[in-house]
Amino acid sequence: MKKVEPRTLSGFMELLPSDQLKFNKIKNTIEETYQQFGFLPLDTPIIEASEVLLAKAGGETEKQIYQIKRGNSDLTLRFDLTVPLAKYVAKNYGQLNFPFRRYQIGKVYRGERAQKGRYREFYQCDIDIIGDGSLNIINDAEIPNIIYNLFNNMGLTNFVIKINNRKVLNGFLQALNLTNQSSDIMRLIDKKDKISKESLINELENLNIDPNIINKLLTFININGTNNEIINQLQTLDINNELWQEGIAELETVYQYSIQFGIKENNIQIDLGIARGLDYYTGTVYETFLTDYLELGSICSGGRYDDLAEYYTDKKLPGVGISIGLTRLFTNLNELNLLKEEPINVSDVLIIPMTNNYEYIINCYNKLMENNIYTQIFYEQRSIKSIINYAINLNIPYVIFIGDDEIKNKTVTIKNIKTFEQKTMDINNIIKEVHNEQRNI
Amino acid sequence: MKKVEPRTLSGFMELLPSDQLKFNKIKNTIEETYQQFGFLPLDTPIIEASEVLLAKAGGETEKQIYQIKRGNSDLTLRFDLTVPLAKYVAKNYGQLNFPFRRYQIGKVYRGERAQKGRYREFYQCDIDIIGDGSLNIINDAEIPNIIYNLFNNMGLTNFVIKINNRKVLNGFLQALNLTNQSSDIMRLIDKKDKISKESLINELENLNIDPNIINKLLTFININGTNNEIINQLQTLDINNELWQEGIAELETVYQYSIQFGIKENNIQIDLGIARGLDYYTGTVYETFLTDYLELGSICSGGRYDDLAEYYTDKKLPGVGISIGLTRLFTNLNELNLLKEEPINVSDVLIIPMTNNYEYIINCYNKLMENNIYTQIFYEQRSIKSIINYAINLNIPYVIFIGDDEIKNKTVTIKNIKTFEQKTMDINNIIKEVHNEQRNI
Repeated sequence: MKKVEPRTLSGFMELLPSDQLKFNKIKNTIEETYQQFGFLPLDTPIIEASEVLLAKAGGETEKQIYQIKRGNSDLTLRFDLTVPLAKYVAKNYGQLNFPFRRYQIGKVYRGERAQKGRYREFYQCDIDIIGDGSLNIINDAEIPNIIYNLFNNMGLTNFVIKINNRKVLNGFLQALNLTNQSSDIMRLIDKKDKISKESLINELENLNIDPNIINKLLTFININGTNNEIINQLQTLDINNELWQEGIAELETVYQYSIQFGIKENNIQIDLGIARGLDYYTGTVYETFLTDYLELGSICSGGRYDDLAEYYTDKKLPGVGISIGLTRLFTNLNELNLLKEEPINVSDVLIIPMTNNYEYIINCYNKLMENNIYTQIFYEQRSIKSIINYAINLNIPYVIFIGDDEIKNKTVTIKNIKTFEQKTMDINNIIKEVHNEQRNI
Repeated sequence: MKKVEPRTLSGFMELLPSDQLKFNKIKNTIEETYQQFGFLPLDTPIIEASEVLLAKAGGETEKQIYQIKRGNSDLTLRFDLTVPLAKYVAKNYGQLNFPFRRYQIGKVYRGERAQKGRYREFYQCDIDIIGDGSLNIINDAEIPNIIYNLFNNMGLTNFVIKINNRKVLNGFLQALNLTNQSSDIMRLIDKKDKISKESLINELENLNIDPNIINKLLTFININGTNNEIINQLQTLDINNELWQEGIAELETVYQYSIQFGIKENNIQIDLGIARGLDYYTGTVYETFLTDYLELGSICSGGRYDDLAEYYTDKKLPGVGISIGLTRLFTNLNELNLLKEEPINVSDVLIIPMTNNYEYIINCYNKLMENNIYTQIFYEQRSIKSIINYAINLNIPYVIFIGDDEIKNKTVTIKNIKTFEQKTMDINNIIKEVHNEQRNI
């Protein structure tokens, strides 16, 4: 028979089981943390009507979508989890409880040029808190605490959550009469750590901005010091603009309550240069960096928005949320050996039958399983060495041999895979022995 | 702004949070049960090259696929989890440990005509044990035990796992010289419970089968009695055919060891009429029915196959596996009220601030969270009644009021949502109180 090459498309992650176990462990940690903070699960379809999914989109997004034409239907694979959320909340408004705290962990699709670290299919892990008409600013202060717990639960400690508020910059731009150019300027500021100061000045000059004002802008975005010092410097700048005042007040509230929620000072940092590229955000913005690997860029980002679903409904639905691009994050953490080192094993015990008399063997298996010791029986005819290798490769900590002697004496012989220690004993004693060193999924 | 109607495509399940929690609970139960039996997770892409995915397909499958054309790429959404598994095992053969026990739970896509109970996007939950060259028949006896545990863990007890072996029927057909028509006949037998005896005879006559032989066939497929009686009747039929003998021996082994593994007699039933429509299966076959709702059809099916990946590799990879169509099963169980009744709550406590002084409130929140009591704070300005309704709708068992009095006395006031009992006490006593009745996700 002619064979087809069994290939996987480039830009699509497909892991070997040992890595898949690690991936799932992180994914579960994220899910559990989201649940811990009261978020409800959502699972929207991967396929939506193009008209619905692209109600707002344009430009880059449209170019990257995966589109399906079937008969008269024009369908699109979701490219994020935010647009489906907007649709969902608009559609089910009357049946939801607000503030609506939802998490969604699922695959999204972007037909980007495949390159290292870029995926066409990848997991996003999102939370959002959606208000009905309004949403208290303290919700924005809960988010850094959730990020903090999330990465702590994943075993990461060297990270910094950068926060800012777009009203501060927007108010500043209003005061300088630069509002019409604000989105251009914000996009530039967003790039400030990636380009030189000279290029930044150059590009600002290209926007026909007065050099004096460019200087003020640079002074402003380079305000630094401790978080409290930054807030003080902002408060003393004495700019007479309502948005600016609102932004500073919000930023201070978010920062102070974040600390109150228990974040360590060195894990949170006000950074007036963080703006997020998306016009979507209207207040607080977040980015999260691994302090030892800043080159990875932000690994968890989000912010506050005024209106989630304006393309679908007249209801005013402000919200705040974050997103983690898990596929890329996992790849990076795995390559950098930043994942917890502990071996992951699914089974605790592998029974190796040394006889074809299975009655006693299956009884032992049942007893172990009933006692919550996850057990496999290796039925195939292989050399002992290759069966032991199966156990080693799957990190199964114990093998149990059962042959005619064991059946006669109603015992089993257990071998610890790490220490090579081997003992013959009653199956009930095995249960105690194994319970001391149990699986880790 | 012109609004787009926020609709979800028909044939695509999208649940409200309360149902999503129920769905996730079943999905988690399935996943945990699969892990318990030593299966490793896999997560293959939803999109594959059409050439790869359709290597084997034809006819009905091709008509139902979702195809994506992007530039020169011809891509297809997976329509099951078996073909991706075949590709995966062929591709990663050298890096897998055999027998390879894998589970995969994921969405698949079939562009079927939308109708009640039929989904275009649905979850399949599969396990397979893949052998390298050969696979011991006792593996086939593990599968009913897994199904048995699976449905028990889901809280279902009235179900029957029907087993058969295709070699029995194929051997019988060989002995009757009907091998050339075997797949037509097997497809008919597969339908036998759905059509009348007369239609069945009619259709067999249409295949130009001799009435004598039709009678033998009907006698054979209507052999009944207890499982042991069926095996006895088969053994005494004295048909001189190797395949037949092999099939009976395998069927007996699978049945006997299934019992040994602990399945109750009334949960397993040899049914010689079960053939499974797919030509793919070569030995043991399984179907599972809810005894009180036979009209739902099989809710968990599978079987033994000789060669998983013949379209991709020369390696002989026999296997045995099962699949659950979870989206449909969930919909049915939910409609029939067969899901466990217990309310599912994500959070244990909702704090209702009666003041804007949040310092003490957040300290209480932190203390509860540190003690593994999942807590939310309701920050929005709403009537007490509507906040209590939020707690009721989310099944949050306790609300805690904190106002100026509580702050002054360093207490909190807790209200049990079910009993309406209300007490004022120290936060540390709350921790003990709430631990007695904790969340259920």
